[in-house]
Amino acid sequence: MAERRPFTLGLVQAQAGPDRRKNLERAARAVERAAADGAEVICLQELFADRYFCQTEDPALFDLAETVPGPCTGRMAEVARRTGAALVVPVFERRAPGVFHNTAAVLGRDGEIIGLYRKMHIPDDPGYCEKFYFAPGDLGFRSFETHVGRIGVLICWDQWFPEAARLTAMAGAEVLVYPTAIGWHPAEKANRGREQLEAWQAVQRGHAVANGVYVAAANRVGLEVPATGGPGIEFWGASLAFGPMGEVLAQAPADREQIVLVEVDPSRVEECRRGWPFFRDRRIDAYQGLLKRFG
Amino acid sequence: MAERRPFTLGLVQAQAGPDRRKNLERAARAVERAAADGAEVICLQELFADRYFCQTEDPALFDLAETVPGPCTGRMAEVARRTGAALVVPVFERRAPGVFHNTAAVLGRDGEIIGLYRKMHIPDDPGYCEKFYFAPGDLGFRSFETHVGRIGVLICWDQWFPEAARLTAMAGAEVLVYPTAIGWHPAEKANRGREQLEAWQAVQRGHAVANGVYVAAANRVGLEVPATGGPGIEFWGASLAFGPMGEVLAQAPADREQIVLVEVDPSRVEECRRGWPFFRDRRIDAYQGLLKRFG
Repeated sequence: MAERRPFTLGLVQAQAGPDRRKNLERAARAVERAAADGAEVICLQELFADRYFCQTEDPALFDLAETVPGPCTGRMAEVARRTGAALVVPVFERRAPGVFHNTAAVLGRDGEIIGLYRKMHIPDDPGYCEKFYFAPGDLGFRSFETHVGRIGVLICWDQWFPEAARLTAMAGAEVLVYPTAIGWHPAEKANRGREQLEAWQAVQRGHAVANGVYVAAANRVGLEVPATGGPGIEFWGASLAFGPMGEVLAQAPADREQIVLVEVDPSRVEECRRGWPFFRDRRIDAYQGLLKRFG
Repeated sequence: MAERRPFTLGLVQAQAGPDRRKNLERAARAVERAAADGAEVICLQELFADRYFCQTEDPALFDLAETVPGPCTGRMAEVARRTGAALVVPVFERRAPGVFHNTAAVLGRDGEIIGLYRKMHIPDDPGYCEKFYFAPGDLGFRSFETHVGRIGVLICWDQWFPEAARLTAMAGAEVLVYPTAIGWHPAEKANRGREQLEAWQAVQRGHAVANGVYVAAANRVGLEVPATGGPGIEFWGASLAFGPMGEVLAQAPADREQIVLVEVDPSRVEECRRGWPFFRDRRIDAYQGLLKRFG
């Protein structure tokens, strides 16, 4: 096997305002800065083009969706070509009337669409009304070959599912990247905020160890209160990266925008999996129960 | 549903010497102390009756194996009856000529055998020659109803496999307990020891979060050098417990014996899974790939 060289992953942690055009241009500038700093694959946060509109259920908001390819991926394709970086571009995808997805397009450095990931695990919790907006993904768990490395893409709620991480690692990913939009309910932050944030970090760190793979998440940041009122969500930033032994490589602040750069070294994946060869020992004859809802 | 009351889990972290009878009596005394301190279910470390004999491959060592029920479970059944605690009793199980398992028997407080778990994932790494000694378990992933709560039992190398944790949680376990024998190769400790220990903690913490379940491990402690020579293994203790949000409940020292007590509260499992209902959203239609070796 030809040795694959290390590459630099960039994560953009940003605030989103009410104006999509401004959000897109802010993202374009962030990608340019990340690329100037050496990033070769750059991941934007979940649904980066807008505020997190899923706090309420409103049929009019389906107007925010667009096709892929479409305006968002078109604008980001220009940025990919200009910077020479591959991009993970989350999109509220309009597939057909009544069929919408929470999607991430992977763009190559020439602006081409390498492939799509459609969010497989869809949450529905107070303030996260995603089952209203998004049909569950039907493309399965995938990895995408960029000019520098093979990346797996999953989105936000997928973070909590070991099955998603495992299947994406088994698809050949050297790094799992998670565009994310997670935060605190303001009323819960004082009492439960720390525990929630640490749980989010812990489950992703576990995926890194269990799969001998890099794991990275690009989260949004800032308080977003819906136009209809309510306490809103304080997105907790804290974009992160772990190495394939679970070692902490990066941790962004919780209260401001940041670009995170991480080196992904495929030879480190090789080394860790030789030391602890979990894939050798999986009991694939005894996992049928995983296809059931519960015991 | 009748609310289940919290119960106290005890973990025995001990050294093992060359004399099995002394090891058994040391374990009996530790169980008695744990029970006196309030433990209602008590877990001993992996293969607690002996030194960790799997450092080398020696056909003569199959003489250490015994049937279940047999002398080890018999002795521990007396302790269960005397203390009124349910016990997780690891045994080198002789099932038939040429068929041996790394097993844990769950004993009820009346000394009865509630059931067996036979280690499903068998390691084979330098110093851990378990594929030589143990046939892979064939009883699957299970949970066991004790007089106070439903516990899942997994053993050591199983710790690294999210599938094992998931299936055992799906079998109804409120806590996953892992009898364990893991440590440092002395030559690696200075450079890689911390990273290895943290990876071990991280993957188990991840299981707790992903499954909304308590996780606990009882590890052995102390340097064991085989009679045939070699550097041996320094077992790293650090027996641990996490709550169903991944919160750290207990962490024993790395260099001495300890009894760890942890409260397991089924209502906390209920609460965490209502807040983050991962089991609701598992994509059981899309997990078939988990039954394959790799992508």
